[in-house]
Amino acid sequence: MKVYHLYSGGKDSSLSAWILERLGYEVRLVTISFGVLDNWRFAKETAQKLGFEHQVIYLPREILETAAEMAVSDGHPNNAIGFIHERALEAIASMPGVERVSDGTRRDDRVPFLELPKTRSLEDRFNVAYIRPLLGLGYKTIRELTGRLFNVEIKASEELEKADYEVELRYLLREKGIDPLRIFPKRHQQSRVLGWKDV
Amino acid sequence: MKVYHLYSGGKDSSLSAWILERLGYEVRLVTISFGVLDNWRFAKETAQKLGFEHQVIYLPREILETAAEMAVSDGHPNNAIGFIHERALEAIASMPGVERVSDGTRRDDRVPFLELPKTRSLEDRFNVAYIRPLLGLGYKTIRELTGRLFNVEIKASEELEKADYEVELRYLLREKGIDPLRIFPKRHQQSRVLGWKDV
Repeated sequence: MKVYHLYSGGKDSSLSAWILERLGYEVRLVTISFGVLDNWRFAKETAQKLGFEHQVIYLPREILETAAEMAVSDGHPNNAIGFIHERALEAIASMPGVERVSDGTRRDDRVPFLELPKTRSLEDRFNVAYIRPLLGLGYKTIRELTGRLFNVEIKASEELEKADYEVELRYLLREKGIDPLRIFPKRHQQSRVLGWKDV
Repeated sequence: MKVYHLYSGGKDSSLSAWILERLGYEVRLVTISFGVLDNWRFAKETAQKLGFEHQVIYLPREILETAAEMAVSDGHPNNAIGFIHERALEAIASMPGVERVSDGTRRDDRVPFLELPKTRSLEDRFNVAYIRPLLGLGYKTIRELTGRLFNVEIKASEELEKADYEVELRYLLREKGIDPLRIFPKRHQQSRVLGWKDV
């Protein structure tokens, strides 16, 4: 039972990888890159510390360009992030031999989040099961479990040490002369999983 | 980390109890009864076979009466089942010392299912975490996991050997001279968990 799990190195995708392993799945972590930056290596580092298999999948830069246009025209990044996430799931689901895809999206997320019709469409078009271990968990439960499992570094800082879609999207916007702060809400705190807690 | 888990003895609530245990929770199974029938004992039997703690919680018969009126006036049982489920969650969440409640509702269920605002309201009013381990899982994944874990009996029959809300609701309707078949969709197959598979 091999599952390909979208992985950023953050708390949510790390927790869901752990849950999948507890349920008996053979978990392969997958980080998306558009080849613009090498921030995928933060995810790889964390994956190695946690002892999971990891690979990087490159998506065409056109997807990031389209997302950037969406973000500019919307004035906020939600649709753009959702768009990238769907393309990422489709890219993994269409790889030969892939029967299960998963991610760390949670109940209280607005983006990225696939509504039920899109969820079923993904499963039907690619003949895969799509698994979201955190979807039925609220923030209290996620905090409780991550607090028990992981050493986490919290920084009030720039978002460079992450491997989520946002980092390359911000970079591309800056390249185009657009200030990402006009589009992205300010975030004061960043968290990154450093490894397992000693139990 | 004790969690009170709504339990019918069926595949979904058994699978979610197993998941909770795998995540490190101390799982206490709870079956609802209105004292009309003793069909809660099917849930207790399965709970014992699986090795979980189990208790029965009695809800006032007025709740079942209200649900029966809703089912009759709607001509279908969905709102009635949803109504009972919310009252059941509230009853458990309001018990002294309860910090976590959970159930086996799944992604593809229409009822019983709490939308996000009701989910948050439940958590806020009773200061509990509400956990739904199956919410991010589709039918393929649930079938795969239950098939690996449980011996299941499938019967094309009456629904007496179950401990879900429907059984007492149907009974009450019959008592009132209303044919439940006018309200409930016909179900041809019933499944019940008999125990763990030998691994």
